[in-house]
This record gives sequence, structure tokens and C-alpha cells, in this order.
Amino acid sequence: MRMALARIGVSAMKEAAKGEGAVMTHMDFETLVTLLARIFRSNGVSGVAADILARNCAGAERDGAMSHGLFRMAGYVSTLRSGWVDGRAAPVVEDVGASFLRVDAANGFAQPALAAATPLALEKARATGACVVAIRRSHHFAALWPDVEAFAQAGLVAIAMVDSMAVVVPPGAHRPVYGTNPLAFAAPRENGRVIVFDQAVSVMAHGDVQIAAREGHDLPPGTGVDAMGQPTTDPRAILDGGALLPFGGHKGAAIAMMIEIMAAALTGGLYSHEVDWSAHPGAQTPCTGECLILIDPARGGSAAAFVARVEQLIAALHDAGQSRMPGDRRFATRQKAEQDGIPVSADMRERLEALMGPE
Amino acid sequence: MRMALARIGVSAMKEAAKGEGAVMTHMDFETLVTLLARIFRSNGVSGVAADILARNCAGAERDGAMSHGLFRMAGYVSTLRSGWVDGRAAPVVEDVGASFLRVDAANGFAQPALAAATPLALEKARATGACVVAIRRSHHFAALWPDVEAFAQAGLVAIAMVDSMAVVVPPGAHRPVYGTNPLAFAAPRENGRVIVFDQAVSVMAHGDVQIAAREGHDLPPGTGVDAMGQPTTDPRAILDGGALLPFGGHKGAAIAMMIEIMAAALTGGLYSHEVDWSAHPGAQTPCTGECLILIDPARGGSAAAFVARVEQLIAALHDAGQSRMPGDRRFATRQKAEQDGIPVSADMRERLEALMGPE
Repeated sequence: MRMALARIGVSAMKEAAKGEGAVMTHMDFETLVTLLARIFRSNGVSGVAADILARNCAGAERDGAMSHGLFRMAGYVSTLRSGWVDGRAAPVVEDVGASFLRVDAANGFAQPALAAATPLALEKARATGACVVAIRRSHHFAALWPDVEAFAQAGLVAIAMVDSMAVVVPPGAHRPVYGTNPLAFAAPRENGRVIVFDQAVSVMAHGDVQIAAREGHDLPPGTGVDAMGQPTTDPRAILDGGALLPFGGHKGAAIAMMIEIMAAALTGGLYSHEVDWSAHPGAQTPCTGECLILIDPARGGSAAAFVARVEQLIAALHDAGQSRMPGDRRFATRQKAEQDGIPVSADMRERLEALMGPE
Repeated sequence: MRMALARIGVSAMKEAAKGEGAVMTHMDFETLVTLLARIFRSNGVSGVAADILARNCAGAERDGAMSHGLFRMAGYVSTLRSGWVDGRAAPVVEDVGASFLRVDAANGFAQPALAAATPLALEKARATGACVVAIRRSHHFAALWPDVEAFAQAGLVAIAMVDSMAVVVPPGAHRPVYGTNPLAFAAPRENGRVIVFDQAVSVMAHGDVQIAAREGHDLPPGTGVDAMGQPTTDPRAILDGGALLPFGGHKGAAIAMMIEIMAAALTGGLYSHEVDWSAHPGAQTPCTGECLILIDPARGGSAAAFVARVEQLIAALHDAGQSRMPGDRRFATRQKAEQDGIPVSADMRERLEALMGPE
């Protein structure tokens, strides 16, 4: 931490004009993490959890995933102030099998709960070939790919599923039951790289609908329905009593159902449609569950053979004309941010400062 | 087996008129299995494998999944006669971890390989909480749901993935790389029931395109492209140098990619685009790989709590207006077939008899 602070001390923070007159500050990653961690701590989050959440949120912004970056901070703070989530929760890791960990997030955020389970989960996956991590009573308000990317960097294949809050209509239903229920997958590549995707089962991520509503953009047809169940392209109509549609019709809906079962029934967490924060005005983070499946590809042959085969698939996709792999844009944005810093507008900077709490 | 044959002896085979003048025989399940097993054996399949494949194929027909039922028999026989698949292959099960089994299907069918691994896979999943079954050098020409349904009936949650042959175009690509790559999921419900789905990553299953081509039906827009990469509704144009599109655009394509990695890179099997049967005219079964993930839901709490929670999700879906769960139609058709027998047309019966081989 001392070293990190020293690095902040010498970091260059460049002022640059970007877009039409928007004044952008370029912050380095650790500076942004420090700022966000202060916001979390000042709103009742423990030091450990604050650092984990700050790295996650700053990482999303750095990678260009704006809907899960700084834009989310107001929602985090609003939820913390509502008393809905416990920022000081102490997750409990239960070792219930050679290849199965249960984690009670204790009404805290999912990321500290996963972090608490990670060392043992890695050990189990490597010792047996696989490990399930079943997290319950957890608030997941972030992108899901960081949860799997770290395991792929450690040489494992990882699948993660989270249920959220009922905003997606099942086929033939007249009201939402499923959450946007993201599915994330990551696998190691050669030279320490990874291939990773993270996608909501809704046609569009809820965060992107929120951004469209804020910015006044229309959405493509087929994204969702209004409160009357009629198709709409207005993001506010979707957010205001309407609902999102699953991607790919009944096939996306089947995946949404699988994720409810894996992330809630299997973990002991709540289903998306059971989340009820009505007693906590301002709450925005669903308290549900998360399921991770970790697999050691070395057991399928050798770790080296696996990553070589992944490269061969990627080469075949490039040869066939697919120029970009899932995750590529994020990694390119990350690389640029590591050189130039993370662009943060003066307006966002002000809004972040305004989120400082009393503690 | 003696008992089964005795049951065949007393089974009623009703002749009934169905449709416009088509003469339907109603066969009971075991009679149909016996007929199909004879066809397999007479075409060079070992007794054990013939019984497994016959039960699988008769089960699909019984459940109303015609594209994977009797319609497939001609393809099985054509492939066997081409020398592409080894009907007498002896699968090798390798115990490589407390929660990981590798299986070499030895260029045989996937179902006998899975059957060989099943007792140990069940034992491992129950002992540790999870088990990965990684099958390579396997021909999968059947529906995938039977592979997972049996595990759910045994109380486990099961996910299965199979890559197949390159018929699906990735986003931005100009030729197919992915297979129809089915994903199947099953979980136990109360009273021995299960919830199960099985879906191709293509907008439509390849078998359904083949049926549409045979019957001269057009397909819905968005199903596929012709050999020039242009959208088409003609099933023959898709089969003749064209390709299928993934469901849900880039999200379905990401799932197709995950399945290639899980079913091929992880298992040591071939990718869909690597399958080359050009030296075996008549071959129709892709020789790739299959990955199963088995999870014991009892580790997440208790088996009873899990199935009760699954029922609660299904009740919520019904309440919201979704009348049918994945698998419901198949189970209803199965129940009817168990009472009335499986309808088989005289024409199909003749075509099946014509498939008897010299052995």
C-alpha cells in the first residue's frame, strides 16, 4: 500500500481536451482506486472490501466498460446509505467437499466473498480437477468478467453465473421473473493472456439501458417491453415498469432459467423475483447468489496443450474473418489506459467527490 | 433381457390411421429398441453399444423429438458402412483426478463412452461435490438431453456440451467455424421429475434443417445464409454450401465458442472445423468431443431443499404466465407413448427394415 501511494505521488495526471470542450483528467489506475476506496470507506465499507470494490470498479472504467465503471459509484453509495447492504459484512467460507465451497456473503458484496474463497477454491480445483464455489446472500453490482478473468490468469477455466433482479420476461409470461443474469466464461491462452466473455441474458445489459435513459437515446427494436407488455424502444419505458427481453428468444430464456437454478437454488441465495428492497429506498444492488465452476484444464491432458489448442481456435476464427475475439476491445482499452491513464471528465470527478460520506 | 423380450411378446401393436391415410403402427418402446438394436448390430455395432444407441434413438422418437429419432437411423447406418466410426470401439475411462474423468471414445459413439464413465462419474460427483467428464474421439449423432437427464434422475445437476461440424458462421466471418454445438442442462425436481433443456447454438438444429429440406418447407428469415453468404430461407441452400446463424447474434456465438473450448480443447477432441470425413463418403457423424459437468446439489445445502427451490422457481414461472417448462412437451409425449405405444408409419417401418446390414 505504501508503494502504491508512492507511485500515486509521482504519477502524471494529464489534463486533456477530449470531445467538444469536455475537460478530461487522465488518472492512473492506482490513483483512481485510492479515490474510489475512500468513497467506499467513507460510506461504511470495511477497508478490505473497499479496496476490492474500488479495484473492480476502476478496472471496468479502465477497460472501457463504462456501464460498470464510475457510472456505478452513485448506485453503490445510494445502496450503502439505504442500509440494504452491509459494507462491513464478514463472509464465511464453508469447506463442504473436496470440490465444493459454500460461501455466505452475509449480506455483503459478492466480490469480497469470492476473494475470501479464492485461495481454497484454487487449491481444490488444482487438487481434484474442479471446484464449485456457491455464494449466497451476496450483492453483485459489478461486471462479472473480473470474477472469471483472475482464475483464467491463474491457469483455470472458469464459468460464473449470477442472478439479479426480475427485469426479463420469460416466453409467454406477462411479467418479468428472470434477472439480467450474466454468464461469464474465461480460459487461459498462451503467454499469460486469456479469452473472456461476460454477457447478460437480456438483449441489453441493464446498465446500458440506464445509460441510454440518462442520455436520452432510443434502443433498438426487440430490446424490451413497456409496463403494458408492448414492444418499446424507449429506455425509460423499460425501466419504468417495463421489462427486457431475453436474447435469442426461448433459447436465451432457457439460459436465464439455468442461471437462476445455479446461482440461487444451488447456492441457497434468492431468486431474482424474490429480491425485495422496498423497505430500503435507494437500494440498487440485488442480494441474490453467484455460482462459479472452476476446471483445471491440465487434467484434460496438459496445461500447455490446452492453451495451444485455444490459440488454434482463435487462429481459425481470425482466418474465417472474425477480426475481434471476446474481450479484445477491453484488453486494448486497458493497454491504452495503462500508458495514458484513465480518462475521467471533470464532471465525473466532481460527482465522485460529492459521493464522499461522513465516515 | 429375457424379461424385456417376454414383455415384447405380449405387447400390443396397434395399427391406426393417422393423418391423411398414413398407416401408423404403434410400437411399444422395448419392441422398437429391439428392432433398432438389430439394425445397429447388423451394421457392425457391438451388442453393448447397439443397445445403448437403440435406447437413445427410440427414446427420442418416443419423446416426439423426431429430428433425433428414427429419422437418424439412415445416417447412423450410412456412417457405419463408410468406415468412419468404429461400432465396436472399446472406450477407455481414465481416472485423472478426484473430480475429473477423461474418456477416450476410441473413434466410437459418445453414448457408450459416457455409459462406461457413468458409475465412476456418479461416485466422484457424490464424493467431492462435482465431477468433470471429458470425452474425446467421440461421435455424437443423437439428442443431448438424454446425456444429462439420466444424471438429474440420479439427483445431480448436469451440464453437457458437444461440438459437432462447422455449419455456424461466427460474427463477421465469411465461412462457418462453429458446430451447432448443443448445450444441455438438467436438474432434479421433486418426486423424481427433472427439468431439462437441450438447445443448439444455431437458430435451428441441423436435423430440423434436414427435415425441412426433405419435406420442402421454407425456414424463417434469419436462420441461415447460402453459399454466397446471403440470407436465405431455403433449407437446401443452407445445407448446400451455406451456413446457419447463431441464435441471439454475438451472444449465441460466444456460447458456441465456449462449447468448442470445453468440448474440444479441454477434452483433447477435435474442433468442429477440424472434422474431415472426406475419405469416408457417406459419413454423417462428427468425431469431436463432449464435456459434462456434474454437480451434487446436496453440497449446496440439502438435496431436499434444492428440489423444493426448483419447484418454487417453476411455480413462479407458471404464475407469471409461462405455461410450459423446458422438457414438458417431451415428457407429455413420452407419457402418451408409454400408454399408447410409439407411432411409426408403415413407410418408416419399411425404411428401417431396409437398413438391416449383412452381419
